[in-house]
Amino acid sequence: MEYRISNKLANLAPSAIREIFKSLTDPEIIAFAAGNPAAESFPVDFIRNAAAEVLNDMPITALQYGITEGQPGLRKATAQRLSQVFGIGREFDDTVIVTGGQQGIELACKTMCNEGDVVISENPSFIGALNAFRSNGARIVGVDVDDDGMNLEKLEAALRANPEAKLIYIIPTFQNPMGITTSLEKRKAIYALAKKYNVMILEDNPYGELRFSGESVPTIKSMDEDGIVIYCGSYSKVLSSGLRLGFVCAPKPVLSKMIVAKQVEDVHTNVLSQLICQRFVTSDRFEPHLESVRALYRRKCGLMLEEMDKCFPKDVKFTRPEGGLFLWCTLPKKIELNGFVKTALANKVAVVPGLAFNCDPAAPSDSFRMNYSTPSDEQIVRGVRILGQILRGETL
Amino acid sequence: MEYRISNKLANLAPSAIREIFKSLTDPEIIAFAAGNPAAESFPVDFIRNAAAEVLNDMPITALQYGITEGQPGLRKATAQRLSQVFGIGREFDDTVIVTGGQQGIELACKTMCNEGDVVISENPSFIGALNAFRSNGARIVGVDVDDDGMNLEKLEAALRANPEAKLIYIIPTFQNPMGITTSLEKRKAIYALAKKYNVMILEDNPYGELRFSGESVPTIKSMDEDGIVIYCGSYSKVLSSGLRLGFVCAPKPVLSKMIVAKQVEDVHTNVLSQLICQRFVTSDRFEPHLESVRALYRRKCGLMLEEMDKCFPKDVKFTRPEGGLFLWCTLPKKIELNGFVKTALANKVAVVPGLAFNCDPAAPSDSFRMNYSTPSDEQIVRGVRILGQILRGETL
Repeated sequence: MEYRISNKLANLAPSAIREIFKSLTDPEIIAFAAGNPAAESFPVDFIRNAAAEVLNDMPITALQYGITEGQPGLRKATAQRLSQVFGIGREFDDTVIVTGGQQGIELACKTMCNEGDVVISENPSFIGALNAFRSNGARIVGVDVDDDGMNLEKLEAALRANPEAKLIYIIPTFQNPMGITTSLEKRKAIYALAKKYNVMILEDNPYGELRFSGESVPTIKSMDEDGIVIYCGSYSKVLSSGLRLGFVCAPKPVLSKMIVAKQVEDVHTNVLSQLICQRFVTSDRFEPHLESVRALYRRKCGLMLEEMDKCFPKDVKFTRPEGGLFLWCTLPKKIELNGFVKTALANKVAVVPGLAFNCDPAAPSDSFRMNYSTPSDEQIVRGVRILGQILRGETL
Repeated sequence: MEYRISNKLANLAPSAIREIFKSLTDPEIIAFAAGNPAAESFPVDFIRNAAAEVLNDMPITALQYGITEGQPGLRKATAQRLSQVFGIGREFDDTVIVTGGQQGIELACKTMCNEGDVVISENPSFIGALNAFRSNGARIVGVDVDDDGMNLEKLEAALRANPEAKLIYIIPTFQNPMGITTSLEKRKAIYALAKKYNVMILEDNPYGELRFSGESVPTIKSMDEDGIVIYCGSYSKVLSSGLRLGFVCAPKPVLSKMIVAKQVEDVHTNVLSQLICQRFVTSDRFEPHLESVRALYRRKCGLMLEEMDKCFPKDVKFTRPEGGLFLWCTLPKKIELNGFVKTALANKVAVVPGLAFNCDPAAPSDSFRMNYSTPSDEQIVRGVRILGQILRGETL
């Protein structure tokens, strides 16, 4: 049988870096290519006790069909934290629980975009979001990113050139893959441009709780007087990624359509996990846990940067993130990216070549992404030294 | 702000029967309108122990990111059961875990249908599937259902009239909402027609484990020599609906695209729940549990039918299901459906008017759906008596 796959999925090629991600299951590989939270960041004891309590106290609630919008207690606790810590949520907004931040991104695109509509995105950006847009038949227009966020001239040019743009997708805080944070001035300017061109902003903030240095910058959603920002967040990096819990705060007319779309995707998010999460975020363990995760990544990121300062040639540039999971290295012209990535993998160190994050999958890249949350301290030191030797052209 | 919602979601109207479903939260209402498994059908003790064991034995696996295709152990156990009990799975097939049967249905449509493509469906059918098709911009063409399944002449006419049809959606066993089972002859004929017209079959079998009387009928997927059937199943009715676990068995070229689509919807299904489920289906508690759930619904369905035989006027027709959760009543011309449903609700009995399940939302209906898994025995007796009094025009 010749299968007639829909255009939007037929054209969604398997990732060019599949081989690299496959290599991550090899225990001998030093996995700088991953994006997993550190195993130590999961509050295992709390989750074990909370699961037992929930299944003792309210087993039928935990195991029966739930509400598409999410469990009322977790919605309330999430909305309160968004309001108190991130200045998010106005009268026209509401907050719902989704199956990981990924679902929030996908639902936003499905709700706003017809096939052929445009999503403007930071370039490079999170591959999961880019593929979510592609899977809905949206066209992605990339805008290059400076050290302090999207290039504003290029953003305005993209908005002018694409009147059918429906969303500006942005990870303003500890961006994936670059690890940079958009400045307050640029956030304000991006908001103003979105308003001027009547395009909504999709603000993705999965790492927002993971600032380990520098000053916090207000979310774009906190500036949203006009109801033009859809905000997606996640419990994957602060509780557990395997439990698939995220949230969306958005203007009610948009959110109500996202909920219709969610209902037909998975009816509702896993109830047991929502009840566990609710206990966690409303407990006095939550704040100290966040502090300990931040301290963990502060140390790991610091260690990686320290080793890179020591081992990498000076003409290899890299970002110095103030939070999140990733940093971004750019090679000098004389070093060819794919050859470098292959040599690294042959020497048991996996990094992700930048082309994986390009809005245009055919565009070249001279950069690669490194992750410090997954590898052990010992692996960080050893792996960076190996990369340094390769970059300096030394025989291994 | 005037929000520019995508056509496929802007046109997806909130359900006309929202008010009825809202009423189900009122504890005074006798909920014949629900579709929930009986609370007694959840193996609470097993789940509580399994959750504790999983979080003791393999907490990081349970809480870390997982594989989009699902946990290998649960996939294997599911594929084995499908093969042994339902004759499902050939060399060209594979089995993956999804976030409830609903996600399998939605992914199948997204993978096969461009906007404007046609899904042919039994009429009436499951509202969650119909809305999943609509949310992907597919057009639904309904085929009327006889006592033994789809009307074959009308199915062939629909196939002839719609060369852009991509899927035939069918719940052949204990259909929702009608409770009927498609005969073996019709299954063979539907398969042959799908093959002839080069259209895939989406076989939805969420109630397949719930046969409590009569002879089992082979699944359509078990006849699938040509690789034209996508089969969706669910653990919602035999383990827990709140844990959101379902599965899909389909030819690999189609399944691989469904997996790409799943990855951008929710990355993967909740891992903790998959590990709990795996322990359950591979335990010696599974078969006896299925037997006890079947016995429970045999009793509840029998009780409802017995009371209906006693209390309903003879010109009210209803189906006599051999499994599943629902039965379907058709009113004589002299009784107007909406008035009846409203009077029932005013007397604290909720049923679902048939129009909710129509492929054409504007089409009329003279039928309503009743559920026997949710209400207590006492509620079944009392509720049916009240409906009988209304149907006979007695003053309440």
